Amino acid sequence: MKYIDGGVCAAKGFSASGIRCGIRPGKTKEDLSLILSTKPCSAAAVYTQNKVCGAPVKVTRAHLENGIAQAVICNSGIANTCAENGEETAEKTCGYLADALGIKPTDVIVASTGVIGQPLPLEPVKAGIPALISALSENGSDAAARGIMTTDTVKKEFALEFSAGGSACRMGGIAKGSGMIHPNMATMLVFITTDAAISPALLKKALSENVKDTFNMISVDGDTSTNDMVALLANGEAKNREIVYEDEDYKAFKDALFELMKELCRGIAADGEGATKLLECAVSGAATDKDARLAAKSVVCSSLLKAAMFGADANWGRILCAIGYSGADFDPDKTDVSFESAAGRLCVCKGGRNVAFSEEDAKKILSEKEIKIIVSIGGGAFSATAWGCDLTYDYVKINGDYRT
Amino acid sequence: MKYIDGGVCAAKGFSASGIRCGIRPGKTKEDLSLILSTKPCSAAAVYTQNKVCGAPVKVTRAHLENGIAQAVICNSGIANTCAENGEETAEKTCGYLADALGIKPTDVIVASTGVIGQPLPLEPVKAGIPALISALSENGSDAAARGIMTTDTVKKEFALEFSAGGSACRMGGIAKGSGMIHPNMATMLVFITTDAAISPALLKKALSENVKDTFNMISVDGDTSTNDMVALLANGEAKNREIVYEDEDYKAFKDALFELMKELCRGIAADGEGATKLLECAVSGAATDKDARLAAKSVVCSSLLKAAMFGADANWGRILCAIGYSGADFDPDKTDVSFESAAGRLCVCKGGRNVAFSEEDAKKILSEKEIKIIVSIGGGAFSATAWGCDLTYDYVKINGDYRT
Repeated sequence: MKYIDGGVCAAKGFSASGIRCGIRPGKTKEDLSLILSTKPCSAAAVYTQNKVCGAPVKVTRAHLENGIAQAVICNSGIANTCAENGEETAEKTCGYLADALGIKPTDVIVASTGVIGQPLPLEPVKAGIPALISALSENGSDAAARGIMTTDTVKKEFALEFSAGGSACRMGGIAKGSGMIHPNMATMLVFITTDAAISPALLKKALSENVKDTFNMISVDGDTSTNDMVALLANGEAKNREIVYEDEDYKAFKDALFELMKELCRGIAADGEGATKLLECAVSGAATDKDARLAAKSVVCSSLLKAAMFGADANWGRILCAIGYSGADFDPDKTDVSFESAAGRLCVCKGGRNVAFSEEDAKKILSEKEIKIIVSIGGGAFSATAWGCDLTYDYVKINGDYRT
Repeated sequence: MKYIDGGVCAAKGFSASGIRCGIRPGKTKEDLSLILSTKPCSAAAVYTQNKVCGAPVKVTRAHLENGIAQAVICNSGIANTCAENGEETAEKTCGYLADALGIKPTDVIVASTGVIGQPLPLEPVKAGIPALISALSENGSDAAARGIMTTDTVKKEFALEFSAGGSACRMGGIAKGSGMIHPNMATMLVFITTDAAISPALLKKALSENVKDTFNMISVDGDTSTNDMVALLANGEAKNREIVYEDEDYKAFKDALFELMKELCRGIAADGEGATKLLECAVSGAATDKDARLAAKSVVCSSLLKAAMFGADANWGRILCAIGYSGADFDPDKTDVSFESAAGRLCVCKGGRNVAFSEEDAKKILSEKEIKIIVSIGGGAFSATAWGCDLTYDYVKINGDYRT
């Protein structure tokens, strides 16, 4: 497995574009993105579990029932959620695009992100589609990644190459997500493309299983959005033997997908609204998988701990406290906590008790950009990792007046 | 029922005090508080549900097994949690106090609040007890309320008079709580005294039932503390007929207790760490009690909404979103949302859709100190109210470096 460039265009047969069509007047960034495969793909997606569910999510869910898609269109600025005629707007968007491309409307994945409760104007989208198609390019991943961003400060794009079924395959993804990021769902917009040939059933299985360990293990602020989806398209252009059994090839595919999803997760967590630091909490020694997940997630979700990390304060009591209310079964008196970063590693709690440590060393370690919180909660065999970010003044600033 | 002065000393036969004994060097505020009844009381308490549970909580739970107590001692500064010999320290504190007062050690309720993971020094507590006892006064509620504060900016103290069993009875309380405040437990330190005569069983029942609708419905930051307790002492000095059945007198007692607890709740939520506004979310129209509670709590817990309230931004989409992931069963298309404050009332969402409203009016309403968020989620008969506060720069500042 090796990292490569190209994002969603790294895999053969995919092109992408991103343009500004003017969904919200007065803004300047790209707000409409397209990803296209030269031929129909096996396709799978996971969606928000929020009961208030965006119109595009409903439409995409219906379109993907047959496990096939060829294009992704996504706008930023307005979420097309809790607004009149939302599904009609999403369907029409697919229709205009399909007509212009000569593909089936039901082979279009449609997504939106932005403000809830305002109607999505169809005119700029419709008027923008010709330019969006003209802009399609094998170097278009960057523009597509920018087009789906809202409060994101950096684009999240990643690709890698791996071997499966006797061929080199490629896989790449772009992601959007900064606020409203929380476990327990497909937590943001993520579009992944691959040229591997794989059956729709195994594509779906690999995606769903990896989501549990990646996107469902990150949190920025505990809020789960109405519009999130992770969609995966596989067009088979790598000409590998099609992956149809859970064999070594499937494992290679799933491992590559995990790596890609994990890196996109880290990117999203590090770019959490207002964040200055990426937090990674690795819990081991749990008696069950569930306990490990609950504990790790609870730590990265704690506002108190997140604020302490912003302040580079080694306040480990808040970590024990967060695990204590997580619902995980564990013995506080058998719990150890260490902090690790590029500046070193420091044990601060052993057996649930304070360990004498240098506050200066702790400050140095916690002042880095990536902080690992390593927690052992007993003698069990299960472990889990969760990702998050610190809580900062800027989170408050960004969300104090997002609409205007 | 009428409001009166006096806090925990409003009820006959109670005195209180608060002094500085020096638990954390370099600080100046009171850090040790005492409440004493002239005679043993019926006593009940509810405790944190965090699996990491402070030593004082364990000791108090044991002391209250017989339903009797006469004194409360509480320190601030260090939580006596996750530290060596914590229970021994808490037991010794009770012992020193009981010896000096000539009461039973097991009739002492002991509590601590502050930093987790540091040992509580016994010396200043022991040395401070004589001064603490000398300072006891019927005007001592203020000092006691200050002695239990940590990051609180105002003391929370409230009292009222009501009629039960043919007599005028009094009831008063003090509370501490600012960060680490979250539903699903006794969420802070609250000490309530009353001179009503009531059986230990009914005292416990009234407390437990009211906690569900008051302290379990507030949230400041989603973190539940290790040391929280709500304790209630009834000494019978009002000479009313003892309340031993669930009759009218019990109802009067329970209603008075609800009122007292609700006011302390509002005080705690309004003084949430860094808060500038009290948020009250009233949900109606739910199909079940559980749905109503889940929805109301989820709204006041949403970091995104809390930040929007700080910015006086009528971003109602975040309210629907928060109810959407709350686990409550509801129909987004039958959901209405209004904001209300001293500046007026404004409907912003009807049937899950945006209502045209004046942003200027919204800004005016949301700029007040107390904001009511009124949500109807359908045609059901159940309702619930939850309290919280906005998320501000100061929350981050306070928690970025709490220990030092």
